[in-house]
Amino acid sequence: MTMATLTVPAQVPSPAEDAEQLRKAFQGLISFCFSLPLRFELMKCYSVTWIHYREELLKTLDKELSSDFERVVLLWTLEPTERDAFLANEATKRLTSNNWVLVEIACTRSSLDLFKAKHAYQARFKRSLEEDVAYHTSGDFRKLLVPLVSTFRYEGDEVNVTLAKSEAKLLHEKISDKAYNDGDLIRILTTRSKAQLNATLNHYHNEFGNAINKDLKTDPKDEYLKLLRVTIKCLTFPEKYFAKLLRLAINKLGTDEWALTRVVVTRAEIDMQRIKEEYQRRNSIPLDRAIAKDTSGDYENMLLALIGHGDN
Amino acid sequence: MTMATLTVPAQVPSPAEDAEQLRKAFQGLISFCFSLPLRFELMKCYSVTWIHYREELLKTLDKELSSDFERVVLLWTLEPTERDAFLANEATKRLTSNNWVLVEIACTRSSLDLFKAKHAYQARFKRSLEEDVAYHTSGDFRKLLVPLVSTFRYEGDEVNVTLAKSEAKLLHEKISDKAYNDGDLIRILTTRSKAQLNATLNHYHNEFGNAINKDLKTDPKDEYLKLLRVTIKCLTFPEKYFAKLLRLAINKLGTDEWALTRVVVTRAEIDMQRIKEEYQRRNSIPLDRAIAKDTSGDYENMLLALIGHGDN
Repeated sequence: MTMATLTVPAQVPSPAEDAEQLRKAFQGLISFCFSLPLRFELMKCYSVTWIHYREELLKTLDKELSSDFERVVLLWTLEPTERDAFLANEATKRLTSNNWVLVEIACTRSSLDLFKAKHAYQARFKRSLEEDVAYHTSGDFRKLLVPLVSTFRYEGDEVNVTLAKSEAKLLHEKISDKAYNDGDLIRILTTRSKAQLNATLNHYHNEFGNAINKDLKTDPKDEYLKLLRVTIKCLTFPEKYFAKLLRLAINKLGTDEWALTRVVVTRAEIDMQRIKEEYQRRNSIPLDRAIAKDTSGDYENMLLALIGHGDN
Repeated sequence: MTMATLTVPAQVPSPAEDAEQLRKAFQGLISFCFSLPLRFELMKCYSVTWIHYREELLKTLDKELSSDFERVVLLWTLEPTERDAFLANEATKRLTSNNWVLVEIACTRSSLDLFKAKHAYQARFKRSLEEDVAYHTSGDFRKLLVPLVSTFRYEGDEVNVTLAKSEAKLLHEKISDKAYNDGDLIRILTTRSKAQLNATLNHYHNEFGNAINKDLKTDPKDEYLKLLRVTIKCLTFPEKYFAKLLRLAINKLGTDEWALTRVVVTRAEIDMQRIKEEYQRRNSIPLDRAIAKDTSGDYENMLLALIGHGDN
C-alpha cells in the first residue's frame, strides 16, 4: 500500500503529532470496533483512516515498546499474513529474537499461508525471511530454522507406510546416537508432509516405546533440544503446543504478555476453541478465568473478547 | 485436471491403443501447430484432444524413453511451471538424476515462477520438491541443493553495500580455507537476492583479484565445485550459462539431446535471443547453424522453429 495515494481526513493526527493523541483516537476507534462483529474486514477495506492508523502504529511499534493493549490491537488489525511477517521480523531481530515464534509460523500455518507471509515480509522489509533468519542464527539453530521457514510442505494426506517405517528407524538411530543435528533428522522434520510425519512419529512411538519428544528430553535445559520438541509439537499437535505456551505465559512470574498476546491474536478464529479445551483439560481452570486473573483493563477486555469469552 | 470429466472425441486413440498410432496422430497435430504462431495458448485451452494427448504422452514419457522429437514436443506443450515440475522430478530420479537441472530451475526462474513450479510439482507428484531433493541427495550436494530449491528469494534491486563488502570478505575467507561447504557460504548463495549477490561478487572480484568462479576451480573435476560454479553462473549470468550448456551439448560426441532440448524449450521466448548472441560471440558460429549440423528431421525443425530460425 502506498501512502501517497491516500487522502487523509483532517482529524487524523499527522506522523509528527504526539503519540498520546494517537492513543486517544485509537481508543475511540476500538470502542467503535467492539460494537461490531469481530470480523471487521469490511471496515478495514473501506476506512482510509484505519489504514493510516495502522501505518502509524506500525511505525510506533518499530520505534518503541508500546503498551500491551496497543500491541494486541495492532496485531489484531493486521491481516494474518502481514501479522506473521511482522512477528517473524521481530523474531529475527537481536533485541526481540525468538526462535519459537519462527517455528510457530513455519509449522502451524498452512503452506500457502506461510508462503503469503513470506511474500508480505518481502513487501514490507525488502529482504526475504530466509535471508534474515539465516543471517541472524548460527550453528544447529540455523540448520533447523532455515529449512523450516523455507520449505513449501506438501499438504495432502497420502501416507507412504514403508517410508514412515524406514524414517522412524532412521530417526531412532540418530536420536540414540545423540546426533540431534543430523542432516537426515532435520531433512525429515523440515520436508515431509504433516500427514507423513505423523505416521512416522506414530510408528516411532509404537516400535521404540517412547514418544519421540520424550527421547529428545535427555537434557531439559538444552535450548536446541527444546526447539526440536517445539517443532515436533507444532507440526503434530498445535493446539496442545499453544495451550502449553499460554500456561507458561500466564503462570510466569509477571506474565509473559508478548506470548499471551501472540497466541490469542494469531489463533483467534482459527483453533482457539480447541486450545481452550486443551487448556482446561491440562490446567483445570478455563482459559478466560486464568487470563482475567492475570491481566487488567483494556488489555484484559481485548484478550477476553478475542478468545470468545463465555463461548464455551 | 481429471480425465474423468473430459469427453474424448472418437478419433483420439485410447490409452490402450498402440504408440505408433499416437505418434502419427501427433505428427499431424504438429504440422497443424506449425501453421500457427508459436504461442498457441488459445489452442491449448480449447482443445480437449490436445489435453488428452498431453496426458497420454506424459504417461508414455514416464514409462519409456521416447524419441527426441516426442520429448521436445511434449516439453514444449507443457505450461512452463508444469514443465519445470516435470523436469525437476526427472532430475531427482535415480536413472535420470541431474543436479544441474535442479540448480537451473532454482536459480534462473523468478521467485514466483519457482514457487508455482513447486505448487505444480505437488499437484502432480503428491510430494514436495523439497522432500524429493532432500531424499535423493546427500552430503554437500544436499547442503547446497535443498536450500536452493526451498528459498523464496527477494527480487528487489536494493543493495546493501556494507553487507556486500562484509559478505565478500567472508566468502573469500571460506574459499581460501577450501571450506566450500561452509554454512555461511551456502547461506549467502542460497538466501541473498540476485542484486545483493551480484554486488557481493563484484566486490569479491575487485577486492581479491579473481572472479569467484575462478577461485572455485581448484579441482576442475570436483563435481560439487562444478555445481557451485553452475549455481553462481545461473544466479548472475544465466544467458552465458545456457550458451555454454548448449556448446557442451552440441560438441559432445553424439550430442546431448536432453540438454539441447531442455535449454531450447525452457528458454524459447524468455532469453533465447541473448543466449544466441552469447553463443555466437563465444563459438563464432550462429546457434541455428550449429544445431542444424548436429540434428536432423522433425527434431531439427522443431528446435530451429523454437529458437527463432533466421530471426537474428
